[in-house]
Order: sequence, then C-alpha cells, then structure tokens
Amino acid sequence: MLTLYFAPNTCALATHILLEEAGAAYSTVRIDFATSEQQSPAYLKINPKGRVPALATDRGILTETPAMLAFVAQSFPAADLAPLDDPFAFAEVQAFNSYLCSTVHVAHAHRMRGHRWVDADDKAAIAAMQKKVPQSVGACFDLIEHGMLKGPWVMGERYTPCDPYLFTLAQWLEADGVDPARLPRVVDHRRRMAERPAVRTAIAQELAG
Amino acid sequence: MLTLYFAPNTCALATHILLEEAGAAYSTVRIDFATSEQQSPAYLKINPKGRVPALATDRGILTETPAMLAFVAQSFPAADLAPLDDPFAFAEVQAFNSYLCSTVHVAHAHRMRGHRWVDADDKAAIAAMQKKVPQSVGACFDLIEHGMLKGPWVMGERYTPCDPYLFTLAQWLEADGVDPARLPRVVDHRRRMAERPAVRTAIAQELAG
Repeated sequence: MLTLYFAPNTCALATHILLEEAGAAYSTVRIDFATSEQQSPAYLKINPKGRVPALATDRGILTETPAMLAFVAQSFPAADLAPLDDPFAFAEVQAFNSYLCSTVHVAHAHRMRGHRWVDADDKAAIAAMQKKVPQSVGACFDLIEHGMLKGPWVMGERYTPCDPYLFTLAQWLEADGVDPARLPRVVDHRRRMAERPAVRTAIAQELAG
Repeated sequence: MLTLYFAPNTCALATHILLEEAGAAYSTVRIDFATSEQQSPAYLKINPKGRVPALATDRGILTETPAMLAFVAQSFPAADLAPLDDPFAFAEVQAFNSYLCSTVHVAHAHRMRGHRWVDADDKAAIAAMQKKVPQSVGACFDLIEHGMLKGPWVMGERYTPCDPYLFTLAQWLEADGVDPARLPRVVDHRRRMAERPAVRTAIAQELAG
C-alpha cells in the first residue's frame, strides 16, 4: 500500500496523477501549509526536509518527484508508463524531469519561497527575486516550447512520467507572469492533459481534501 | 563511444568519476568557462541550456547529472554500480541525487550564479544571496550528515552513483563558508572517495585539460 503526502497546488500533483495512471492502490494525506504542518515534528519524521511530496511504501519513505515518478513507473510495469528497458530513453525521461525539478521549479520558487536563499527580512532582495521570475521561468518554458517538448507528448508519441510533471508546473505559468500565448505547444499539452481521466481524478481528490 | 563535455570544478566531475568506475570507453571535451564557451553557438547546439555536463552518446545527447549517472550505471551493468533490479532501492539513489541537484547545488549556486534569479546589476540582491549561502548549504549538509548519508557509503555498504555526486558537491563546502568540522561523516566520506583510483584518474584528467 502506498500513501502520498501532498498539498494542493504543489508538485505533488505529478506523482498523484501517475499513481492514477498506473492503477495503483494508494491513499492520500493532505498536509496543511496554512498551519505550516510540513514543518511539524510529526511530518518531519516522515520527511525531514519539511516538504511535500513524500510517498510512504512498505519498504520506507521516498521523496523527490523525479525519483517518485520513476518508482511508480517501475513498480507498475504493466501500465507501460516509461521506457524501462531502454537506458537511453529512460535517461531522456529522467533528464527532462530533473530539469523541471532543479531549474524550472527552482526558478518558480523564487516568487514565493525566496526566504530559502536570502534573509526573510530582506524585503528588497525578496522583491528583486520576484521581479525576475517572469524572465527566468519564461526562459525555461521557451526551451521546452522550442525543443524539449517533442509532441504530442513530451517524449513524442509515448506518454511518460514527463507529462504529468510538465502539466503540474505549467499550472503556474500565469501566476509566474509568463504569457501563455507565447507557448502554444505547452498550452496545447496542458489542455490535452486536463482531459485525461487520471488527471481529473487526481485534481478532484486534492480539491476534496 | 561516449563523450563527456565538462569544465573543471563543476558537477561534471560526478559523471566523469562514474565513467571511470564503470570502465567505460569515453573521451572528454573541456568547455572553457573563462571565455563563456558554454554560451557559444557551437556548444548551444550540444546543450541548449548552456551548461555542463553533457554526454554525447550514439543515440543522442544527455544532460542533467542524476539522469547521466543512472544512464552510466544502467549501460554498464557488469560494473554493478547501482541496484538496477530493485525499484525501491533505485528510487532511493535517484532521490538522493535529485536532492543534490535541485536543493544542494542550487543553494551553492546562489554564491556565484545569483544572476540567474535577480538582475545581474542588483548588487545588493546578489550580495544578499551570497550572505545566506553558508546557512542554506550548511542546512543541506546537516541533513546529509545526520541521516541521509548511511555510511560508509551514501546508501550503506554499497557504493552507488550517490557517492561520486556527494563527493563532487562536498568539494565546495569550504568556499561556501561551511565549517567542515561540523560534518565529520561527510568529510570522512570525502577522504575515502579521494583515495579511489577512479576519482584520482578523473581529477587528473580534468586538471590536465
């Protein structure tokens, strides 16, 4: 049995969607960011990093979205969610997801989580970070739009763990100040993802709490 | 045949070491950061992100250290560099490496690459970022010291791709203003890594250019 610790409107949605796509048996636990539950002693025992997502398994707890997505794909091979037997193709999947995690999500995080990298009281530095988010996130999505997103899915004809992860981060474009009109292929991908039953189920579950 | 594009004193060293550990046939190409070669039109054709490392293979080019490390381990199974047949154990490796890539390296990068997240001309914001690096990088390494590094290797008794990657980022502790005296297990790991022939060979090749 798998348990996904999540908060709404976070990157936990990517793993949530893939669990649905896999047909996995799982439950969810909502972590309340409004009360900083992710920093509570109880949750820090689950994930000492104080972040979501985390995935509790029979073997222990996993964190980090690229690793969790690969774990779901490998644990449910019948769902055929990734090129598991092709090291190069698998690495392409992992490289895309690593870019989302370490560059795209990080650029986005400078809008709301700037205190990770400067003193929280330094209002000018926090504002300086927020000011650049449209440019830094926009540059990431330009690379995705004009090369990395092969179409119709991220890796081409085959749906992979890259798709729910890109969909999740593409939710934040407008709030990050990036005009989606310049990203027609990303927006088309987002629209087609939103039509998938697994995506609708995962989002409905998160909104229901 | 594999070709690793690298620059000295970058995270490319992790993949370089693992190629040596794997006994892979590979060549290296040094990218000159002093002349911003990573932003040259020729290199941007190899890696449009304008960064190192990149790994050219017969199938195409891979980027992103966690993905490249997994690719090397999967491509040379006889070297037994990762728990390839155990999705949970493999995910633990990927989770550790994802943390290094998306949190530890990112915290470090605010010392020298702050212009990624604020205007390069905003000297106060750049300085504010630099000021917090000892704290943010230190907090990451505290988590590694007190839990994530199982010992003697990152994943316990077994050497995995986590080890060259941790070794690589641990090179930067002193310059990041983190006192290594508070991290005896990390420093012991760094010392034992430095004794491995693969590590010595990779570093010697990079210094020779």
